[in-house]
Amino acid sequence: MPSRTFTHTVRVIYAYTDQMSVVYYGRYFEFIEAARNELLRECGFTYKELESLGIMLPVVSAHLDYFAPARYDDEIEIHTHIEKLENVRVTIAYTAFEKSSRQKLFSGYTIHAFVNTNGKPTRPPKAFLEKVQ
Amino acid sequence: MPSRTFTHTVRVIYAYTDQMSVVYYGRYFEFIEAARNELLRECGFTYKELESLGIMLPVVSAHLDYFAPARYDDEIEIHTHIEKLENVRVTIAYTAFEKSSRQKLFSGYTIHAFVNTNGKPTRPPKAFLEKVQ
Amino acid sequence: MPSRTFTHTVRVIYAYTDQMSVVYYGRYFEFIEAARNELLRECGFTYKELESLGIMLPVVSAHLDYFAPARYDDEIEIHTHIEKLENVRVTIAYTAFEKSSRQKLFSGYTIHAFVNTNGKPTRPPKAFLEKVQ
Amino acid sequence: MPSRTFTHTVRVIYAYTDQMSVVYYGRYFEFIEAARNELLRECGFTYKELESLGIMLPVVSAHLDYFAPARYDDEIEIHTHIEKLENVRVTIAYTAFEKSSRQKLFSGYTIHAFVNTNGKPTRPPKAFLEKVQ
Repeated sequence: MPSRTFTHTVRVIYAYTDQMSVVYYGRYFEFIEAARNELLRECGFTYKELESLGIMLPVVSAHLDYFAPARYDDEIEIHTHIEKLENVRVTIAYTAFEKSSRQKLFSGYTIHAFVNTNGKPTRPPKAFLEKVQ
Repeated sequence: MPSRTFTHTVRVIYAYTDQMSVVYYGRYFEFIEAARNELLRECGFTYKELESLGIMLPVVSAHLDYFAPARYDDEIEIHTHIEKLENVRVTIAYTAFEKSSRQKLFSGYTIHAFVNTNGKPTRPPKAFLEKVQ
Repeated sequence: MPSRTFTHTVRVIYAYTDQMSVVYYGRYFEFIEAARNELLRECGFTYKELESLGIMLPVVSAHLDYFAPARYDDEIEIHTHIEKLENVRVTIAYTAFEKSSRQKLFSGYTIHAFVNTNGKPTRPPKAFLEKVQ
Repeated sequence: MPSRTFTHTVRVIYAYTDQMSVVYYGRYFEFIEAARNELLRECGFTYKELESLGIMLPVVSAHLDYFAPARYDDEIEIHTHIEKLENVRVTIAYTAFEKSSRQKLFSGYTIHAFVNTNGKPTRPPKAFLEKVQ
């Protein structure tokens, strides 16, 4: 069962735009990182705490579909939830809207492996599972 | 039939790394942009020429699978080819290796729409098709 | 006389860190852009409004001194004010602190020219001057 | 006495541009990092070797003056040299030109401290000094 959804908002600055006057397609991967950090914080178990237990969450797949461009000074509202929690990996889903027009901007997902400090796949800590489920 | 493959190389700098001492997953989308720019240049029709004809190639989907991390000072060799050329869109594929170890780093694709200056889907210019096919 | 000071806060994500586990020195130039955008909004005259009048503010000089590193999940508090408003240029100053430790992270400035759509130096609109002074 | 000058070239991609259709002012700090990495490699002592000896070179000051904008597909030629080598710090200078027009784009410098793994200022290794002088 997917987790509840968390919303993270990003205000577009010049740095994020390109010469087509829209947000560069690669930038969104930073915004969705911020969104999933805040999702975990909201669940009560930050990524920093996970790291302090020697668990990291490298990305194994990333996918975005782009529907409409975001522009300078727009506020991008990113809705994020945990789509699937498997033995040693987790899928996080994202859907984004321009805040005032409610236009859908993009949707997609990232898949992450739980790995220990040696880079070996590992089960996430019980306390983490209790918080995010 | 996929086009021939072009190779583009990127040297990893500090800016590209994160605190896991590996290249940040979102950076690769910049590297593959550089790779596809060079692919078009190699085909004899640069993206800049396409733009001068009022044709742009916004990204409609982007996907990467990550197999192994790249690190500071590594040279990333990106192999790029045109995977599929449809009426009003094109799929470009990427596979990357660490130059000295030959380890596979990532693979994936981007799908682009041909649009005119009004943002409407449009057929690519004949001269472009002749060059890239 | 310098303007009053506005505060903008940035939460550090993985994307901003490098393999020294600190925020990459070049990233701060994005954070201070966000800070000056918010400064203008706070003054009641956004950069977007300025652009809609055909006035742009390209950077002519940028300078930062780094005192202590920011780290993942830190909150960076950037204090910004207009340091000097001259005929056709403006100097904006920045000082940043880590929010919980109050450690000073960096300080510096950017100098911007007021230019019209032809790139020629120009006086800022009266309405703008009234708002920011 | 300043060191000899090394030249590093960067091809401008979409990712580097902003909606003014010029390279974003903050990006240049990445290009000059690449330029100084290559300068050290050229001197025969890479930054990676320095790190393997437990010496790092964090930036303590960064300054750029912008004269003309670089645009998509331009080749930026960055001339780099060691301006000043002091006890525990080094100043590196940069001047950049657009390759075909020879227009001067920017100039500036970064100041770096030699620090050990505890972050304490330290003298650079003798072998390093011999190479770069």
